[in-house]
Amino acid sequence: MLLALLQENSIVLDTVANCAAIESAARAAAAGGADLLVTPELFPVGYAPLQVRSELDPRLLPSLHNQLAGIAKKHHIGLVYSLPRVTETGEWQISATLVDAEGTTLLDYGKVHLFGPAERNAFTPAGNRPAVVEFHGISLSMMICYDVEFPESVRAAAMGGAELLLVPTALGHGFDDVPQVLVRARALESQLAIAYANHSGVEDGNKFLGGSVIAGPDGKLLASASEGPTLLLATIDPEAVKRERRTVPYLDERRADLYQVWEADHNGTTTPPTVSATRTNRIRPATH
Amino acid sequence: MLLALLQENSIVLDTVANCAAIESAARAAAAGGADLLVTPELFPVGYAPLQVRSELDPRLLPSLHNQLAGIAKKHHIGLVYSLPRVTETGEWQISATLVDAEGTTLLDYGKVHLFGPAERNAFTPAGNRPAVVEFHGISLSMMICYDVEFPESVRAAAMGGAELLLVPTALGHGFDDVPQVLVRARALESQLAIAYANHSGVEDGNKFLGGSVIAGPDGKLLASASEGPTLLLATIDPEAVKRERRTVPYLDERRADLYQVWEADHNGTTTPPTVSATRTNRIRPATH
Repeated sequence: MLLALLQENSIVLDTVANCAAIESAARAAAAGGADLLVTPELFPVGYAPLQVRSELDPRLLPSLHNQLAGIAKKHHIGLVYSLPRVTETGEWQISATLVDAEGTTLLDYGKVHLFGPAERNAFTPAGNRPAVVEFHGISLSMMICYDVEFPESVRAAAMGGAELLLVPTALGHGFDDVPQVLVRARALESQLAIAYANHSGVEDGNKFLGGSVIAGPDGKLLASASEGPTLLLATIDPEAVKRERRTVPYLDERRADLYQVWEADHNGTTTPPTVSATRTNRIRPATH
Repeated sequence: MLLALLQENSIVLDTVANCAAIESAARAAAAGGADLLVTPELFPVGYAPLQVRSELDPRLLPSLHNQLAGIAKKHHIGLVYSLPRVTETGEWQISATLVDAEGTTLLDYGKVHLFGPAERNAFTPAGNRPAVVEFHGISLSMMICYDVEFPESVRAAAMGGAELLLVPTALGHGFDDVPQVLVRARALESQLAIAYANHSGVEDGNKFLGGSVIAGPDGKLLASASEGPTLLLATIDPEAVKRERRTVPYLDERRADLYQVWEADHNGTTTPPTVSATRTNRIRPATH
């Protein structure tokens, strides 16, 4: 399966320009033979949590979904894009959607770990375990940005059968070790490929790192970007996943019975993971 | 707190020579002002699981403990060493012991994840959560080798309060990404320092990597070794741990309630993590 990854600057609330950038990448990726294109977190609306929350008319979201599914269908390529979503109870979440080359939705994911005060003021964290779907002979799952920094989330995807994890992100400048150390470790420890697609340039005062990566199931980088707009391409081989899992069977050798007891211990002795006023004071105001 | 780490070749079942090597390192480390010395997995007996199991007289273990505690007391330095232990029910485990500069035992840990058929034939996995103890103003925990490759074990130590994790190991040649990617990620994701002390050279036909590292709570390496015997030194600053945890509060922002549900899902749908005959066929016969 040939995977394409878009690293690009988004223009806050200029959905026409941003969808045009996605369409341009989809055209180039499809021309290069790619089966799937992954794009950064909140790319069609720009990474500006508070401004998006206050100025984006949520009634526009269905037409944005249609437009993006239309791009996938027109260029006959699978597409991962990320938008705000509004739940039935009126809560705004950060979501990622996977559509196939017919524009049909295969997965819809809500971000579980929100980063920093702006995100937490604009959005509500979701709580569903990352789902897994078959696509071109490989099992796909998704999560968003800060989620992948938590080994527990990637483990849940891997234990659910994921062999390739698609991660739209918006990683601020100064966090280079996230793609270079954490994402590589996530791939190696759960033996799945990971595509981590970041913004580049400045949006809403946030300077983005670029530094997008595609890691193989041995934790080695198959492709990586520096700063600036780029389209990465890498072949993802499900046989490589199976081979790594045979060589060192991390997933089989987990002591899940013990972890569950240990996690229950934590839950009994630590404060519940809800957002508090004091916590926001402790957070660096960078995007992540 | 000044930490010393011994990377050295051990001679299988020559406990006199191996304890002399530990004493020599303890003398040098203490002379350099170190408060604590960490040594590799099973170093006093050599890394040879099957041979140790069949040829080591377990009645010698108490005197080995006394000898090693005596080295700590004589040179007035804390010491982490690793030996086999025999449980009350006669099972052999791989253990690590922390003694203080008076030779008093502060922690005793049993390896939870055994690696490869030789270890699993010689030993039984332990099941206790890594305990935490205060030492020179910093909270210490221990685990052994393959354990640290599982994010769940390091999380359990961090959630228990660990700020510095001491890891005797026996990592075979060809696994360089374990210290360079996984250990750094463990340090960064749980924001604790990690000392990972490996053998060097050949023992029982196993070629060891060297490659020992001491990582800070930002995932950067404070010290690292190539091949060959060496003594690493690094200052471990508990304030750096607290600073990292304030900057990006990973431990506070875990969604522990969700992880527990997800882990229960895994336990309900996967085979229990017991050793089976088929699994040993799937494992590369290297030490790890």
